[in-house]
Amino acid sequence: MSEILAELLAPNDNKILLIVLDGLGGIPYPIKTELEASRTPHLDRLARKSSLGLVNPVGIGITPGSGPAHLAIFGYDPIRYKIGRGILEALGIGIKIDDQDLATRANFATIKDNLIVDRRAGRITTEECQRLCHKLQAAIKRIDDVEVFIYPVKEHRFVVIFRGKDLSDELSDADPEKEGRPMVFPKAHKSTTEAMRTAETIKNFIVRAKEVLHDEPKANMVLMRGYARRPILPSMSERYGIKPCALATYPMYRGIAHLVGMTVIDAGETILTQIEALKKFYKDFDFFYFHYKATDKAGEDGDFRAKVKQIEKFDAVLQRIEKMGFDVLALTGDHSTPAKLKGHSWHANPLLLYSKYIIPDRKPRFTERYCAQGSIGHISGLDLMPLLLANALKLKKYGA
Amino acid sequence: MSEILAELLAPNDNKILLIVLDGLGGIPYPIKTELEASRTPHLDRLARKSSLGLVNPVGIGITPGSGPAHLAIFGYDPIRYKIGRGILEALGIGIKIDDQDLATRANFATIKDNLIVDRRAGRITTEECQRLCHKLQAAIKRIDDVEVFIYPVKEHRFVVIFRGKDLSDELSDADPEKEGRPMVFPKAHKSTTEAMRTAETIKNFIVRAKEVLHDEPKANMVLMRGYARRPILPSMSERYGIKPCALATYPMYRGIAHLVGMTVIDAGETILTQIEALKKFYKDFDFFYFHYKATDKAGEDGDFRAKVKQIEKFDAVLQRIEKMGFDVLALTGDHSTPAKLKGHSWHANPLLLYSKYIIPDRKPRFTERYCAQGSIGHISGLDLMPLLLANALKLKKYGA
Repeated sequence: MSEILAELLAPNDNKILLIVLDGLGGIPYPIKTELEASRTPHLDRLARKSSLGLVNPVGIGITPGSGPAHLAIFGYDPIRYKIGRGILEALGIGIKIDDQDLATRANFATIKDNLIVDRRAGRITTEECQRLCHKLQAAIKRIDDVEVFIYPVKEHRFVVIFRGKDLSDELSDADPEKEGRPMVFPKAHKSTTEAMRTAETIKNFIVRAKEVLHDEPKANMVLMRGYARRPILPSMSERYGIKPCALATYPMYRGIAHLVGMTVIDAGETILTQIEALKKFYKDFDFFYFHYKATDKAGEDGDFRAKVKQIEKFDAVLQRIEKMGFDVLALTGDHSTPAKLKGHSWHANPLLLYSKYIIPDRKPRFTERYCAQGSIGHISGLDLMPLLLANALKLKKYGA
Repeated sequence: MSEILAELLAPNDNKILLIVLDGLGGIPYPIKTELEASRTPHLDRLARKSSLGLVNPVGIGITPGSGPAHLAIFGYDPIRYKIGRGILEALGIGIKIDDQDLATRANFATIKDNLIVDRRAGRITTEECQRLCHKLQAAIKRIDDVEVFIYPVKEHRFVVIFRGKDLSDELSDADPEKEGRPMVFPKAHKSTTEAMRTAETIKNFIVRAKEVLHDEPKANMVLMRGYARRPILPSMSERYGIKPCALATYPMYRGIAHLVGMTVIDAGETILTQIEALKKFYKDFDFFYFHYKATDKAGEDGDFRAKVKQIEKFDAVLQRIEKMGFDVLALTGDHSTPAKLKGHSWHANPLLLYSKYIIPDRKPRFTERYCAQGSIGHISGLDLMPLLLANALKLKKYGA
């Protein structure tokens, strides 16, 4: 559908709010899902006057990562558009990615007698990781004409950004993959100058890093993989004729929003500061992506009660958001994260849609099972944006 | 799916009736939709023994014009097959379109001191338009070796058909688009002989028309746009192994039916004459497209009560149709036209399907909300024809 949208755009001032409760959907554990077990009087009231449905972000049976899941609900085919691992890791710690950047995931590792004996350097602490990254960065600022930026993540994991001209991500991993093997250096997948030169740069970086780390007891080597350039994504303004902004407390979601051309607003650290920011910027944009992380975190921890609590916490502030008077209000997840599975899952996302032009389904609650009976039906992630735009009267008729 | 249908066709004498209540679907205005507010005992009785569903003609969130909407429910991908504006306008006034024809929409306009000062010639009356078209046609029968046919539409609008060899529709509009600007002549989008020659022909027509109209006070110029050749569509007989016919009281729908190779039957002017024609030709065809316009018209006027009345009017004659004993009876819209929106909309079309082989949903009424819960689910317009053919046992098994 995306090919015909371009000719149908009819920008106006109507305001769309897309609330993404991360990992919202669940499964019974043991009898009720997290949504079913929650006390959500405000969501339920809203559900009664809304249309409900279910969204399969990437495809039926497919469990998406946060990158593909978000791309899909923003209307970018996640099979066609990919956010590389290195980029996602960098976005996750709030690094701004430049057009010239090559982002890579890296591990501290232990090398002994020329064999990689521990690919995680004994899972050193995050503090230790920070110290080591500092040490590396102090010693290594550039490799040839390529700038190097080093950022700690968690435990043994860190991110390296290479910034220079014509860097390529078509390289093999610098990682033997199994312990007890010798170190492996990156090789170009293609015999282009760019790929061969980048492979050389990364090799030189690893060699330099090894020198800098030679006196470390555990973390005396680095492994690198997930090389990724910044994906080229047409902006949401271009594609939909909207002025979009993002309100998210976690860096990764701000990063993804930035990639699709949203203005990323400083929304503080809590849902209350997010709501304040929403109010403050209400007049300046016509599309608002509001991200709530806590539901996913509880699901990933396998903590059913915590996820219920986070849903109820959101419910408690819903009215403040409703009061602002958005013309279109949609509430869904990016993917499901059932506490029972302790991770993302393939289950479709519950969807609630409110506007002046929907047919209220009059379902008593907002739950997976009621959504399955809603009048929106079971849609693909890519169908969500056209539906939101239509409800905001931002699309013209197709053909005569 | 259309690519595998060809090898599955199993023609037989079973008869399919597809009733299209134009613009049928609605939204609450304020509490009930038009279907919900209607008294429809016969539809309700039929609904109870039928399968229900919802049809998205072109795509979720997409509001289709009549052309794409009809193509979709006839099983022709409306993104791939397009009916140009000029053709649709010509079909709308009942003009038969030849393979060699180039159809264009035209306006009478006012030119003064070489500037187009009124693009609609003061919205002259339809009678005035008829007089002017007569006058033009009397003076202009051909331009070089291209025949010219001129037909009045409404107010300042008319249609010109150019008939000749190798005419091209790849031309820019002959329309300055804004008033106060000089006239613009068509230019070829491509430097092909066909496009350049056609641009010249149309320019010469405009120059001739200006001469003929020089003594008119208002309508002393013509603007032209929406050039379109007749689309090349494989016939429904070829695609589905059926013998299809159309019963429609409005020219545009007869025209679209003709484009997909249906035999267009003289069905008179009212739903009663349509039913008479249906009875008369029952034995001669095995697929009947029955178009009812009144619902759409009322919706476009924003007249909720009138739309309810037109639905009830249809309900009152439904039994006469049912009695004829079609093997498959489907009832749907081409698109929704909620009175609240005073125009076409993106909402899915209610669908009712009756045959010996469906699972009755036992829903008490035929409404949008009950259809949303029907066992057919939410389907695409392109899924409708295979479903009808299957229910008529006109499709073999795919694979072993």
